[in-house]
Amino acid sequence: MLNFENVTVVLVNTSHPGNIGACARAMKNMGFSRLTLVQPADFPSGVAVGRAVSALDILENAVVVESLAEAVLDCGLVVGASARSRKIPWPMISPEQLGVKVVREMEINKVALVFGREDAGLNNEELQLCHFHVQIPTDANYSSLNLAAAVLVVCYELHKAGLNSEGVQAAAEDEYWDQEKATVQELEHFYEHLERVMIAIKFHDPENPRQLMQRMRRLFSRIRIDVMEMNILRGILSNIEFNLRDAGDQKD
Amino acid sequence: MLNFENVTVVLVNTSHPGNIGACARAMKNMGFSRLTLVQPADFPSGVAVGRAVSALDILENAVVVESLAEAVLDCGLVVGASARSRKIPWPMISPEQLGVKVVREMEINKVALVFGREDAGLNNEELQLCHFHVQIPTDANYSSLNLAAAVLVVCYELHKAGLNSEGVQAAAEDEYWDQEKATVQELEHFYEHLERVMIAIKFHDPENPRQLMQRMRRLFSRIRIDVMEMNILRGILSNIEFNLRDAGDQKD
Repeated sequence: MLNFENVTVVLVNTSHPGNIGACARAMKNMGFSRLTLVQPADFPSGVAVGRAVSALDILENAVVVESLAEAVLDCGLVVGASARSRKIPWPMISPEQLGVKVVREMEINKVALVFGREDAGLNNEELQLCHFHVQIPTDANYSSLNLAAAVLVVCYELHKAGLNSEGVQAAAEDEYWDQEKATVQELEHFYEHLERVMIAIKFHDPENPRQLMQRMRRLFSRIRIDVMEMNILRGILSNIEFNLRDAGDQKD
Repeated sequence: MLNFENVTVVLVNTSHPGNIGACARAMKNMGFSRLTLVQPADFPSGVAVGRAVSALDILENAVVVESLAEAVLDCGLVVGASARSRKIPWPMISPEQLGVKVVREMEINKVALVFGREDAGLNNEELQLCHFHVQIPTDANYSSLNLAAAVLVVCYELHKAGLNSEGVQAAAEDEYWDQEKATVQELEHFYEHLERVMIAIKFHDPENPRQLMQRMRRLFSRIRIDVMEMNILRGILSNIEFNLRDAGDQKD
């Protein structure tokens, strides 16, 4: 049976509680139950309850957090809805492709589906927490989807992919991976470590960052590092620091 | 270009004007413009206008009629949304299959997409006016979709089928990339450089390699590094070497 309990829908800074309720209903229609709200403007709310209809349980169990980073900390696959192409392009995926990917991975990795503000979507920092951006195909003349509409389309494609997967699927790249993926938290610690080392070796000047960390994030989120690789990379960084310190100590 | 002017969305006996507005928005998001209302309870309505947002033109041009038969009189393909399996089985079609079918036929036949009442759907007489029934796959525990949600899913699948028919493929992961990919030769130079540095910082012992380079190759080939990222990584490696040598020189 389909089981999306490893998949969380994350709504960032939702303004209108009615939209939260409508999202809960759309989620439940497609078999999803886990909802996380990042700083909602108005929650809990009777308006949300009214629009949720029979999806009240999702609202009652919704988790409220202070930041997107907190919401996705334990996730191995983070996908953000994005209407626009950004200055620095990010790996894009269609809702249909996303469905196949999530259904294939969700038994191993926790998955977050992230949706931004009604008016402004996700900001650049939030988009860079994502491994992929999902873009819903719309008409060029009116691409602004209602929040619950975006949630519905994405959940619908995942639901369809789940139904398809219950038939026999072709073998895929990530299916046979030998290691668990690193979580967002592990990745964030890695970025902090990397930045420290790049400053120590005078490659990176935080006063004049020139998108360096942004590019590093894009590079490493694209790679989807597994836990053993993460240990190797952290080990390399530690050895660089150790060797620099060691050389410095001997000099003094 | 996609052109759905031969396709009409027909809403039968809609109770809540907000749902009519939300349907208009969903239609416009997916490139549809023709809306027919069969005996709506409350139309025109300011509530409908509020929910339509930028799809006001669809409400303004909506046609109001007295019966479904009147609404579909000139149509060569009539498809009704149906949640339930009926006593007399009818040809059923998924939204995805419907998309392919409509896009193939819509230049020749006028098409009606018919959606019933919020609470009770279409009655048997109305369902028998349809050539096909379309059933949106939902979770068994909560199959009752909001009216605009049903319209959105069907229009979304038609929109996708339209894009496919034009040979427009879903956005591929790498399609929008801003930089050329690094060549194999550049990658090989990078691996040599990386190995040198890992030896220098005493992370890597070529006498006891333990698959380290193999793992690094798997990691970086998976990433498909672009040329700017390659320059950054090579720069980092050079700065590590420089700082180690510098510290060493001062020590001697």
